[in-house]
Amino acid sequence: MNFKGRDVISIKDFSKDEILHILKVAEKMVPIARSDEKSKMLDGYIMASLFFEPSTRTRLSFEAAMKRLGGNVIGFAQPGTTSIQKGETLADTIRTAESYCDVIVMRHPKEGSARMAAEFAEVPIINGGDGAGHHPTQCLLDLFTIWKEKGKIEGKKVALLGDLKYGRTVHSLAYALALFGVDMVFISPPELQMPKEVVEECKEMGVNIEVKSTLEDIGDIDVLYVTRIQKERFPDPEEYKKVAGSYRIDLHTLKNVKEDMIIMHPLPRVDEISPDVDATKHAAYFRQTFNGVPVRMALLALVLGVVK
Amino acid sequence: MNFKGRDVISIKDFSKDEILHILKVAEKMVPIARSDEKSKMLDGYIMASLFFEPSTRTRLSFEAAMKRLGGNVIGFAQPGTTSIQKGETLADTIRTAESYCDVIVMRHPKEGSARMAAEFAEVPIINGGDGAGHHPTQCLLDLFTIWKEKGKIEGKKVALLGDLKYGRTVHSLAYALALFGVDMVFISPPELQMPKEVVEECKEMGVNIEVKSTLEDIGDIDVLYVTRIQKERFPDPEEYKKVAGSYRIDLHTLKNVKEDMIIMHPLPRVDEISPDVDATKHAAYFRQTFNGVPVRMALLALVLGVVK
Amino acid sequence: MNFKGRDVISIKDFSKDEILHILKVAEKMVPIARSDEKSKMLDGYIMASLFFEPSTRTRLSFEAAMKRLGGNVIGFAQPGTTSIQKGETLADTIRTAESYCDVIVMRHPKEGSARMAAEFAEVPIINGGDGAGHHPTQCLLDLFTIWKEKGKIEGKKVALLGDLKYGRTVHSLAYALALFGVDMVFISPPELQMPKEVVEECKEMGVNIEVKSTLEDIGDIDVLYVTRIQKERFPDPEEYKKVAGSYRIDLHTLKNVKEDMIIMHPLPRVDEISPDVDATKHAAYFRQTFNGVPVRMALLALVLGVVK
Repeated sequence: MNFKGRDVISIKDFSKDEILHILKVAEKMVPIARSDEKSKMLDGYIMASLFFEPSTRTRLSFEAAMKRLGGNVIGFAQPGTTSIQKGETLADTIRTAESYCDVIVMRHPKEGSARMAAEFAEVPIINGGDGAGHHPTQCLLDLFTIWKEKGKIEGKKVALLGDLKYGRTVHSLAYALALFGVDMVFISPPELQMPKEVVEECKEMGVNIEVKSTLEDIGDIDVLYVTRIQKERFPDPEEYKKVAGSYRIDLHTLKNVKEDMIIMHPLPRVDEISPDVDATKHAAYFRQTFNGVPVRMALLALVLGVVK
Repeated sequence: MNFKGRDVISIKDFSKDEILHILKVAEKMVPIARSDEKSKMLDGYIMASLFFEPSTRTRLSFEAAMKRLGGNVIGFAQPGTTSIQKGETLADTIRTAESYCDVIVMRHPKEGSARMAAEFAEVPIINGGDGAGHHPTQCLLDLFTIWKEKGKIEGKKVALLGDLKYGRTVHSLAYALALFGVDMVFISPPELQMPKEVVEECKEMGVNIEVKSTLEDIGDIDVLYVTRIQKERFPDPEEYKKVAGSYRIDLHTLKNVKEDMIIMHPLPRVDEISPDVDATKHAAYFRQTFNGVPVRMALLALVLGVVK
Repeated sequence: MNFKGRDVISIKDFSKDEILHILKVAEKMVPIARSDEKSKMLDGYIMASLFFEPSTRTRLSFEAAMKRLGGNVIGFAQPGTTSIQKGETLADTIRTAESYCDVIVMRHPKEGSARMAAEFAEVPIINGGDGAGHHPTQCLLDLFTIWKEKGKIEGKKVALLGDLKYGRTVHSLAYALALFGVDMVFISPPELQMPKEVVEECKEMGVNIEVKSTLEDIGDIDVLYVTRIQKERFPDPEEYKKVAGSYRIDLHTLKNVKEDMIIMHPLPRVDEISPDVDATKHAAYFRQTFNGVPVRMALLALVLGVVK
């Protein structure tokens, strides 16, 4: 397995063994991510953090990852200050940025832009989200969280809840979980169901898929993965309120779940999980957020060839 | 005295002895702040700099403080790029940010927000100003400036001048000076007088307070602390002009002052101090600005437990 | 030759020998800029990067330069977050910023602002472009590119193409090339010709100048320096299209040029050079962009006195 110089564009670019290797490297990064240990592994390296679309969480997580390993960061947090305004192509912006750095992390509103950037750049490109496209580091940190909290991924039963139609993260996650042989339940309002292609793809990979529209009978679920239902998806605000309310997780929802069932959420949440839930042992979402740091540390160290 | 893990929300959270300890630690930081000496004291640590309201001066001063000690910084300089736009609560934003760092510096337009953040965060929170609330690091750097320029704080006579009603910094400063047994003169336009509660509180602490509306008879003053009178406070621009003009410090104002009287200002100034004054020995405001760095270095090192 | 503490405001502040010295120091920085070698030369130093006008390219290049040498950066990328909004003068902003750093890089929309800042600041000021004024580091990286690609600058023949009237970079470059005894051809639309003063100045310095309005007969040119023709200069969009089209470099343009002729461009380009050209050996513009890093590393190390 050799990661040096590789781009990280889609979770589909990685085999199951490669994903497991990334998770194991991430595991070793945890004490450094917590600053219990210090590292100068990426001393002298520069990561360019190019956010053509704002995303504080992803950006800060990547920057913390680079800095915890002794590396440096340059970049921009929003598109307002770039040469793109002057009519520069993405290809030129990327080729310019790569003169200044060793690895590029980019987030861009346009699907396919990260792949295109990777064609032009000689330094590795890590996709921090490209519109309706991919967000592989979110997927990897989700897998890492299940693996770490549950000891393994295989054989677990995962429910994906909320907006499964438009939610960028859940399509990749469903694929990745199927790769690990995980049976899944897709729970969503009828108008926000998981696209048929994703359901079919998972089934073809040999896992059991159940499609539901209510939050009932979740007593056998090991991981409940909640996503945000966006107001903008509903023409009628009243309709949104009704739908969002019926998928809200609160203490009542948790009455008949497994004792060690964990709740995950890519965050930010608006109203999908009641703050009451935060204090329960089920709430894994803040640990999940933290996990973004060691996973991104692992990826940076791997593609820069500092860790094998 | 133990500062490790403590939040810095209000100057009132600190005893006189604790304040003096911070000033003494700051004193030792001066050569490092000037880059005459190098330090790696905070190597590997990350400070999150969360500015929900822009403030270049405070932000750059904190970031310089962290970097002079070998530490790293992540964060944002304005609210435009945060998840708050998506409806995230401050509590969630803070709990996310703390996964990425060892200490949080935050500035927020809403009074009380820093205290609330501190309730949710496990890492120390340093308040970089919360609206009409507190700005403890400004207060500490003001005290440090007087202590350093005058040798001690006790027994000095300080005049606070300008907008004493709305000025965030002067209320805390008046309290802190009273704590050190400093007699004060409050000079302001009648419509911008120091709130009665502040005057009463100071008097109860045992110091002499004089309330005036003219800049006359300042011959016994050791420190003249000038604040900005904001145009927005006056319905009539002509009225503002007249008022602002009568509190302006120029060479003429300085004719009958003590030879070693110093002028301080939290900056930015607009027109309150004539540029002529900059070249006089009285002008201490740029040294005061510099003092923000060693004071913030001291606080960072103390709350991170690297200095006792 | 002593660079310690010097400001870098205009290329005219430097003698030919001084420029050559900067280029030689830059040459030694190349392996560090590529991260083939590590350096801690500027460890503990802070550069303030004050961009009162956005310029991603210049900013990232300076920040990469500082960080490749182990130094730190604070600053802002756009004016929106500064005290200037509150009415602060540039002099005060600069004197504040210098309390936090060892060197200031500034870009400002107003001509003459860098020179003014240098009068107030005690730390060195490096001008990253001041409106219609100077952009000395662009000029130095252009010279470095020619020097490195061609082995020497003297005796080469350089064509400057495009908007020679308003283009900030080309006026300084013409002067600097004349200083090195380089014969030049100025090619531009009649309405965007090189100002007469610049032409006269170059001639007085003893070099041959040819002024043309077509892209023909460039068979004896060693360096073709292309600049952007801005739409805003033309009242009529159709007129712009016609003009811009007739100065566009494509494979056809390159049919009768010297085999080792190089094309340079300060970037960003919009449509002045066809992407086809990128793959030819003539295209030097991405190497030129990279050269900004070692040149800025050299300047930072020199003015901070770490390299002689």
